[in-house]
Amino acid sequence: MNKIVFIGAGNLATRLSIALQQCGCEILQIYSRTEESAVALSKKLNVPYTTFLDKINSEAEIYIFSVNDYAIRDCAIKIKKRESLFVHTSGSVPLSVFDGISIRSGVLYPLQTFSKEKNIDFEKVPFFIESNNRKDEQLLCNLSRMISQNVHVLSSEKRQYLHLSAVFACNFVNHIYDLSAQILQEQSLSFEYLIPLIEETAEKVKTLSPHDSQTGPAVRYDVPTIRKHIRLLTDEKNKKLYNLLTQSIFNNF
Amino acid sequence: MNKIVFIGAGNLATRLSIALQQCGCEILQIYSRTEESAVALSKKLNVPYTTFLDKINSEAEIYIFSVNDYAIRDCAIKIKKRESLFVHTSGSVPLSVFDGISIRSGVLYPLQTFSKEKNIDFEKVPFFIESNNRKDEQLLCNLSRMISQNVHVLSSEKRQYLHLSAVFACNFVNHIYDLSAQILQEQSLSFEYLIPLIEETAEKVKTLSPHDSQTGPAVRYDVPTIRKHIRLLTDEKNKKLYNLLTQSIFNNF
Repeated sequence: MNKIVFIGAGNLATRLSIALQQCGCEILQIYSRTEESAVALSKKLNVPYTTFLDKINSEAEIYIFSVNDYAIRDCAIKIKKRESLFVHTSGSVPLSVFDGISIRSGVLYPLQTFSKEKNIDFEKVPFFIESNNRKDEQLLCNLSRMISQNVHVLSSEKRQYLHLSAVFACNFVNHIYDLSAQILQEQSLSFEYLIPLIEETAEKVKTLSPHDSQTGPAVRYDVPTIRKHIRLLTDEKNKKLYNLLTQSIFNNF
Repeated sequence: MNKIVFIGAGNLATRLSIALQQCGCEILQIYSRTEESAVALSKKLNVPYTTFLDKINSEAEIYIFSVNDYAIRDCAIKIKKRESLFVHTSGSVPLSVFDGISIRSGVLYPLQTFSKEKNIDFEKVPFFIESNNRKDEQLLCNLSRMISQNVHVLSSEKRQYLHLSAVFACNFVNHIYDLSAQILQEQSLSFEYLIPLIEETAEKVKTLSPHDSQTGPAVRYDVPTIRKHIRLLTDEKNKKLYNLLTQSIFNNF
C-alpha cells in the first residue's frame, strides 16, 4: 500500500489523512510547524509527527502538501526527495509549483470544505487530479478512487476556475448566512428558524438550476419591498451589499 | 374541520393548500386571476375554482390570501365576508393590511421557499402566526400545528426582519449559486461538481454558527489569491461583487 507523509495538519490534511488511512494507506508521519496541530493529528492517526522539515521521514513514496498555498514551495524545497511524488491539495496553486524541486509532481484537489472535528463522507466528494506524468496521474486517480467515486483529471488552468466558483458557492454563501444570522440576532430572533430554508435552497439546485429556481423581491422587481428592506438594514455596508446583489439579480433576468 | 378558501394559486398556495387538505381541512374553492394556475391547483385538490372575486364561495370560515403582496388588500376588499377570518401568508405585509375590511384578521407565514411541483416536508417548516384577537391566534396556531411542529406567534414588526433575513439566506444565496454556475459554464465545467460543497456548507451551520465556520481567501486575508480571482472574473459587475463580499468578510473578522 502507498506510503504517505502528510505535510500539514489543518482541516483538509486531517480529514484526508484519516480517510486514506481508513482505506489502508500507510501514513508514515505527519508534519506541522505548529506543535499543537501536529500532536492532535498524530494522535488521531496514531503515527509519529515532527515539527522540523529536516526530520521528515524519507521512506515515503508520496509527500502530500496540505499547507497554506504560499508555504507549499518553501516546504517542498526543504525535503530532499527528488525521486518521490510530491503532491499538493490546493485549488489555486498550479502544478508547476514543484518545478525544479521534484521530478514527479501532482495535484489532488478535493472540492469540499473541511473542519477538523466534523467527519466528511468522501464518497461523493469530487477529486481533481493532475500530474506531470501519466503514471502518477493514474496512481493519484487510483488513490482518490479508494475514498471517492467522483474522480476527474483536470488541468491547473481549469482548476483555478473551480476554486473561484467554490469561493462563491461556499465562502460567500456562508458569509451571507452570517449576515442573515446578524439580522436575526439584532431582533433577538433565533438563527434556527432559517435552517429549513437554507436546507431547501441548497436542496433545490440538485434538481433545478439556480437560475431557474431564483425567487424573491429582486427577481419580481418588487421595488417597494426592496426599499423597505434597505431601510430595515442598520449597517451602511449591508445596505450597499443588498443593493449590489439585487442589481446583480436584475441584470441576470 | 376548518372550511377554507384559497385566494391565489402560486407556489406557496399550492404547497400549503395540498398540505392542509391532506390533514383534513376542507378546501372549498380556490381563486386565481390566472385561469391556468386556477385549473392546475383545482385539479391537484379536486375542488372547484374561480377566476372571479365576486364568485368566491361565501361558506368558508377562513380566507387565505396567498397572492402578490400588493394584491392582498385589493382582493380582500372585494370579498364581502366581514365576519370571516382573513389571513395572509406574506413575510413583509403587516397584519393591518386588513384594517377596515374584516373584523377578524391574521397572518400565517411559513418561512420556506416553495415550488409548485416540488413537495415540501412541512413538519420542520417554521410557521409564524399573528392575529388581531386571541381566539383566532389560537385557531391559526392549531391549524399550523396540524402540518408543522415548529409554530410561533410573532408580530408584524418582527416578521419583516425574518423576511429580510430570508432574502439573504435564500434569494441572495441562490443568486450566488447562479454566479458560480456561470463561472463553471464559461469553462465547460459541470455545476454538479459543486453540489457536495453546497450541501456541506448548508449542513455545517446546523452545528456551527456561520461566523465560526467561515473559511476561504477573504477570512485568511489572502490578498494574492483574491487578486487572482478578480482577474479571472470576466464580468465587471462580478468583480465588484467579489470585492464587496470580500470586504464584508474582512470587516466581520
